[in-house]
Amino acid sequence: MNEQPTTLPSRYYTDSGVFRQEVANLFCKMWLCVGRTEQVAKHGDFFLCDIAGESLIVTRDGDALRGFYNVCRHRGTRICREAEGKFSGPIRCPYHGWSYALDGRLVGAPHMDESCFRREEYPLQSVHVGEWDGFVFLNMARDPQPLAVQLADLPQRFAAWGMHDLRRYKRVAYEVKANWKLIVLNYNECLHCPLLHPALNRVTDYLSGMNDPPQPTYIGGSMELRDGVETMSVDGKRRREYLPGLNGAQRAQVFYYAIYPNLFLSLHPDYVMAHTVWPEGFDRARVVCEWYFHPREMAKPDFDAEDVVQFWDMTNREDWAISELAQQGISSRAYVPGPYSPREGLLRAFDQWIVGRERRSE
Amino acid sequence: MNEQPTTLPSRYYTDSGVFRQEVANLFCKMWLCVGRTEQVAKHGDFFLCDIAGESLIVTRDGDALRGFYNVCRHRGTRICREAEGKFSGPIRCPYHGWSYALDGRLVGAPHMDESCFRREEYPLQSVHVGEWDGFVFLNMARDPQPLAVQLADLPQRFAAWGMHDLRRYKRVAYEVKANWKLIVLNYNECLHCPLLHPALNRVTDYLSGMNDPPQPTYIGGSMELRDGVETMSVDGKRRREYLPGLNGAQRAQVFYYAIYPNLFLSLHPDYVMAHTVWPEGFDRARVVCEWYFHPREMAKPDFDAEDVVQFWDMTNREDWAISELAQQGISSRAYVPGPYSPREGLLRAFDQWIVGRERRSE
Amino acid sequence: MNEQPTTLPSRYYTDSGVFRQEVANLFCKMWLCVGRTEQVAKHGDFFLCDIAGESLIVTRDGDALRGFYNVCRHRGTRICREAEGKFSGPIRCPYHGWSYALDGRLVGAPHMDESCFRREEYPLQSVHVGEWDGFVFLNMARDPQPLAVQLADLPQRFAAWGMHDLRRYKRVAYEVKANWKLIVLNYNECLHCPLLHPALNRVTDYLSGMNDPPQPTYIGGSMELRDGVETMSVDGKRRREYLPGLNGAQRAQVFYYAIYPNLFLSLHPDYVMAHTVWPEGFDRARVVCEWYFHPREMAKPDFDAEDVVQFWDMTNREDWAISELAQQGISSRAYVPGPYSPREGLLRAFDQWIVGRERRSE
Repeated sequence: MNEQPTTLPSRYYTDSGVFRQEVANLFCKMWLCVGRTEQVAKHGDFFLCDIAGESLIVTRDGDALRGFYNVCRHRGTRICREAEGKFSGPIRCPYHGWSYALDGRLVGAPHMDESCFRREEYPLQSVHVGEWDGFVFLNMARDPQPLAVQLADLPQRFAAWGMHDLRRYKRVAYEVKANWKLIVLNYNECLHCPLLHPALNRVTDYLSGMNDPPQPTYIGGSMELRDGVETMSVDGKRRREYLPGLNGAQRAQVFYYAIYPNLFLSLHPDYVMAHTVWPEGFDRARVVCEWYFHPREMAKPDFDAEDVVQFWDMTNREDWAISELAQQGISSRAYVPGPYSPREGLLRAFDQWIVGRERRSE
Repeated sequence: MNEQPTTLPSRYYTDSGVFRQEVANLFCKMWLCVGRTEQVAKHGDFFLCDIAGESLIVTRDGDALRGFYNVCRHRGTRICREAEGKFSGPIRCPYHGWSYALDGRLVGAPHMDESCFRREEYPLQSVHVGEWDGFVFLNMARDPQPLAVQLADLPQRFAAWGMHDLRRYKRVAYEVKANWKLIVLNYNECLHCPLLHPALNRVTDYLSGMNDPPQPTYIGGSMELRDGVETMSVDGKRRREYLPGLNGAQRAQVFYYAIYPNLFLSLHPDYVMAHTVWPEGFDRARVVCEWYFHPREMAKPDFDAEDVVQFWDMTNREDWAISELAQQGISSRAYVPGPYSPREGLLRAFDQWIVGRERRSE
Repeated sequence: MNEQPTTLPSRYYTDSGVFRQEVANLFCKMWLCVGRTEQVAKHGDFFLCDIAGESLIVTRDGDALRGFYNVCRHRGTRICREAEGKFSGPIRCPYHGWSYALDGRLVGAPHMDESCFRREEYPLQSVHVGEWDGFVFLNMARDPQPLAVQLADLPQRFAAWGMHDLRRYKRVAYEVKANWKLIVLNYNECLHCPLLHPALNRVTDYLSGMNDPPQPTYIGGSMELRDGVETMSVDGKRRREYLPGLNGAQRAQVFYYAIYPNLFLSLHPDYVMAHTVWPEGFDRARVVCEWYFHPREMAKPDFDAEDVVQFWDMTNREDWAISELAQQGISSRAYVPGPYSPREGLLRAFDQWIVGRERRSE
């Protein structure tokens, strides 16, 4: 097979019509990771998420997690403004006081003419909610496939890291002036690591990467830590116990997986990192990066994880800067698709998935 | 009649094509209140107004008020930059010195070839000007209906307040990230008052409102002041004499009228407030709020009206904030028209007027 | 001939479609002055230029000047970020290290599969480069006419000023909220000088201008310095020797030429000034102004040219402000083409050139 695989045509990165289609076909139809169950641990806890301009409420109603559009059924007002909080009673619209139970039922609608108005017709509009190992997923499709289909074999594969037990240590949000897919491409190859990430290159060998065969809903693989390196951090030292369930091989490697469309999971010997990428326009995206540690470690008086956060924050910023240069160059009239090397096979797989989804929706 | 009246579809608030049509069909064809005659009291006085990006000059030429597009007939230059001032001679373009008399005639055009150039063909382009009780109105239509038709019976109705004699005390301009019509809707019901305006709710009872039957060019009604309250102010106290022409019933009520498309008149026992709403995009508007008092009161050494301005400035900001939440929610993919209560009849009338005007222009 | 010539319809200044056509038909097809050869004097020196959002690299490769699109052939990344500098080796992309010789050949492409990858197919994409009297020109057309055709007889005409020998003293960039053509129109008449430029009017008489008959690729003419004035500066005094090649008549005049589409050359007795106008949108442009002096003068310990820079910087700002007012007025619904005076003949010629180019491209 000698045909040269190439990058996608520029319209995938510079056309507002393609962008709108991707939002509609991917982000409004697939399961998206929006947070952690620990954020909605108790009845009435809530947080908001913003998906391509759409505001959604995630809350806990007893044992059940609920997801709602943040839109009052009376005159369409956005109901909640705070990024997170706790509903002490019903969810009440601040404009005219329409009130909804935590399961979405309309329970108060002042001054409506009850002769022609039936409350049961005006619940909050809901979205599907799913959970996996402490991660909360939403899906805006009317009748989505189960979350388990999208996750495929990842729950078994990642069981050893016990992600359900971990707790969030830090969250950093970045604004990046690049198409969201360029950030996915950047995550899925380490060919750029020696030149772009000198610190990262000191702790792993970019040629040690082993990619899994691309799967229908995710891509990824592993890299080996260099000799004497115990985790990915500013100095390669490990300041925390290994995560409890890991075997010897798992302790010596880093696993990186991109779960379509926009979740990156990076599994380390002593912590897990997750990125989510949120499209905001064909040429800009928001990236949220979070780090999770074992609560037993976090409870220790000398617990410190800034070695990890600083390492990745620097690496993140290097990646966003080059992604912005990629966006600028691809916007040139001179850009033509360029050739992928054999080490960029996951990128080719992602591109083909994008093209396939586009065709399916036509 | 059991059919449930509902709010308008989202396109009326989120579509740039609908917005452009409204500017063309309403704001470029109807009488618009742009200021007060006291601003152009003397020959040569002028002020500028900005209507959906169009700059217009209002000036006084002896007894006559004049309105002109702020565009030189030579090379199209915007002539005036200052928001207000006085022409000491002709209106002169700063680029090449073309000069116009205050009636718009071109009186100077340096270096034109008079063999093929006729000055009388290049006057400033004028717009129609009207007055009512001290308010100045402009109309950009070529051949508009008389202002009196648009005002209908309001001049008789409001005669007792003697608005012609009042003088402007203060002007505050607000930028609001909401469609202009959401600001109209907000003004025309007080169902939201108990929840949104605790201070306002202390001085009037939102259930005391009596709406007039909707008219072809305006909507409105009255509210009663609570017992012991003498005007709408921070504490309900009245620090100024009643306006001279009011009878007992007029002294105990507040009258609020929205004159299509964008003027709100709020008549109080001791002052008048006017809002004008200026569309700037489908999702943003400028609102100008002014307060007028009797000059006899304003001349008193202890005259103070901050109790009124602060009360309304706070109320205004509460209204703009909720209007912005309405804009956000209506922009959601989940928004569908919602049901109006019987207390939102004026909003239904305004919506129907909007839809009717849209159909008429098609 | 009594037909009145007029300005162009508003769409030439307010329509984004017309703007895109002009970028494609004029700025992407004509020779554009982008800098001075002194900026790329030595092997490896480079500078970037930005033409309507397109980034280009100008560099020196031995004796040859080269121009390249700033786009890596691998994944389309913008390669250079610094506005100017020196390549100490090959031009290397910061993402994956693809490297190009200074003639554009790909000389390094790590990890590509050489069985199906041929380096000679992936050079940097080049643009045509030309030189005239120290000015560097680029042309993005595939097969452009020679630069000499565009320059016509100007090289002979301007030989006496010895521009090749001059050196840049200062560069000032301005952002102007006006269509680029309004800035061209403004440059080509001095009818506005008495009103707009009192300082300039003190050193030249605006009625002394003698325009050449308009040429296919440029327009321009001369003005006489007033009695006792020796150059255009804050006080009309000349603080530098005359440029060496000038005769008596050339020492008493100023020559101003607009070379299509966007270069203005202003030749003075003791210095040369150049403006280039760069469209950024239908309603905004960047203008770069540079001043060149004889190196013998610049080497003098008491050399000072702030009298010239301050004079022109003030004049520039006056011109940009009025051009912005022209943009605003032409955007009015009331704008209609207005009549040109006999002293605006060059503007009429430029307008006709614009219309002719537009027709040719349809």
